[in-house]
Amino acid sequence: MLQTIRWNKGRVILIDQTQLPQKLKYVKCTTCEDVAKCIENMNIRGAPALGVAAAYGLALVAYHSKTTSKKELMHELENNASRLRFTRPTAENLFRAINRIISRVGLEDLSVKETKDLAIREALRIAEEDKQINRAIGKNEAKLLKDGSVVLTHCNTGFLATSGVYGTALGVVKVAHEQGKRIRVIATETRPLLQGARLTAWELKREGIPVTVITDSMTGYCFSKKLVDLVMVGADRIAANGDVVNKIGTYSIAVLARAHRVPFYVVAPTSTIDLKMRSGRQIPIEQRSAREVTFIGRKRVVPRGVDVLNPAFDLTPAGLVTAIVTERGVVKPGKVKSLFRP
Amino acid sequence: MLQTIRWNKGRVILIDQTQLPQKLKYVKCTTCEDVAKCIENMNIRGAPALGVAAAYGLALVAYHSKTTSKKELMHELENNASRLRFTRPTAENLFRAINRIISRVGLEDLSVKETKDLAIREALRIAEEDKQINRAIGKNEAKLLKDGSVVLTHCNTGFLATSGVYGTALGVVKVAHEQGKRIRVIATETRPLLQGARLTAWELKREGIPVTVITDSMTGYCFSKKLVDLVMVGADRIAANGDVVNKIGTYSIAVLARAHRVPFYVVAPTSTIDLKMRSGRQIPIEQRSAREVTFIGRKRVVPRGVDVLNPAFDLTPAGLVTAIVTERGVVKPGKVKSLFRP
Repeated sequence: MLQTIRWNKGRVILIDQTQLPQKLKYVKCTTCEDVAKCIENMNIRGAPALGVAAAYGLALVAYHSKTTSKKELMHELENNASRLRFTRPTAENLFRAINRIISRVGLEDLSVKETKDLAIREALRIAEEDKQINRAIGKNEAKLLKDGSVVLTHCNTGFLATSGVYGTALGVVKVAHEQGKRIRVIATETRPLLQGARLTAWELKREGIPVTVITDSMTGYCFSKKLVDLVMVGADRIAANGDVVNKIGTYSIAVLARAHRVPFYVVAPTSTIDLKMRSGRQIPIEQRSAREVTFIGRKRVVPRGVDVLNPAFDLTPAGLVTAIVTERGVVKPGKVKSLFRP
Repeated sequence: MLQTIRWNKGRVILIDQTQLPQKLKYVKCTTCEDVAKCIENMNIRGAPALGVAAAYGLALVAYHSKTTSKKELMHELENNASRLRFTRPTAENLFRAINRIISRVGLEDLSVKETKDLAIREALRIAEEDKQINRAIGKNEAKLLKDGSVVLTHCNTGFLATSGVYGTALGVVKVAHEQGKRIRVIATETRPLLQGARLTAWELKREGIPVTVITDSMTGYCFSKKLVDLVMVGADRIAANGDVVNKIGTYSIAVLARAHRVPFYVVAPTSTIDLKMRSGRQIPIEQRSAREVTFIGRKRVVPRGVDVLNPAFDLTPAGLVTAIVTERGVVKPGKVKSLFRP
């Protein structure tokens, strides 16, 4: 079974997602800096996977630290946590995983050895929980997908976006497929980095789920031809009011879905929800390198000296979201807070 | 001065638009079949330019024909007209130019020599009229563009899409720029063939007009950030009811423009209007090769064996169009028929 990211005795081994679908290659990280670079370069991406990657980054610090001082160890962990926080500003799961490990090891009155072990154990627990959440989200599909449903999806929300074997939005599709429902997927290619064409199509083809790739510009055409029954996308961060920040292009799809009265579902673990953000407008949107737009592979497609924009995410207001699907159930976007009540 | 396509003593010389922006190269056509292949391969594209190319294709037949029989010449012209009609099914200008030459030379009681000369003269006249129409469309801009306006455009509607020096939608931008108005353009890259990134950005940069390229997926983001004052696109065919068929992705932009109350203008010569089509739903939509989606340049971006869609155009209903800008004036889409009243 392929694993997006795994811990192996002081090394973190992850699938190099920049090489897919041509090559299935792995990157081995032995330092937190290695992991941070992989996050920045998007060798690994997807909000849940980024949470796990960041956790493993701190586990590497703990594993390899030579210090015998607890204070020194905490200092090393916090320095590396700061480095990781600078990698990508939008995915909530990344910050949550970092904060969880730092606060967990900071609270306990433990020896250096015990602290190191705890940091590693906590990272492994975050990864394990992500796997369980993947499965739990899948179970919530029953209400949403029917035999014969055609799902339009954007970017990649499969196992490659998580540490699990299902994924978030694609996880729902896979569970329905395993239950014998005939599901078809329309995957937008998702410029600039083509995660839909490269990763989603590759994942679904491996699973035997029929998939058709379209350019992002064909979304309106597909809706107008009534080719889509529902939309399912992931999320990088969800605000307390149900606003959703997700891969650039999501907002356009949401507007088109509404214009054609097609349900628009956001599928994400509750670790993606950031109650500190009252509205999505407060969520920082990462602006990435112009080169992702001006080049495709090694081919220059925009003339030298021409400006480009490259926001990595956009904001879909809660009003355009039919429901948010989480491991704790399916809620209207205005009710995300209810997921956190005891 | 660069010319998209020109007639030079029995040869047709056109800019190879598949090579831009890297290389400015020309293709020389000596037969109508050469021209037909250039149209199919999109060495030349853009509805008005396709009309001129088809006309020149027939002019090549007339120029090089060795026959001394009028009947035989008409037969050659009609055979080649049929070939040209099979190149691309959507652009109205192509059919109109072909029919105009065939009916013009068929009606007159002329010698073989006179018929050949007439076919060539008529082709040159179509090209010259296209240039004049370009200029006339530009003049109609005054109402639409203000100092400081930001125009979002899709695909390429500049001189490369016509035989003129201005273009259609980009022609309006260029005239406003020449009048000293500070106009900025946001150009969608326009997957799959990237005419926005490759051609529009290249044209505008040469003219010194500020341009920012975005991926098609960033359109909604730009509207939501209020970066766009108005949209201007071209058309490949306009129906009698004002429905517009244009490059794939246009419809999505129109829906987004409406959702954000941004005016959406279609700029096209009246030769793009097909009154035989009562509604846009009757207009055939060309489906092109899967390879345009699965590869970018020589790089495969969709895994082998995965299906794709590749409609080259989509339909924007008249209700989403603010106005249609032609060489005969600016009309509401419901009033296109009025452009043809004497």
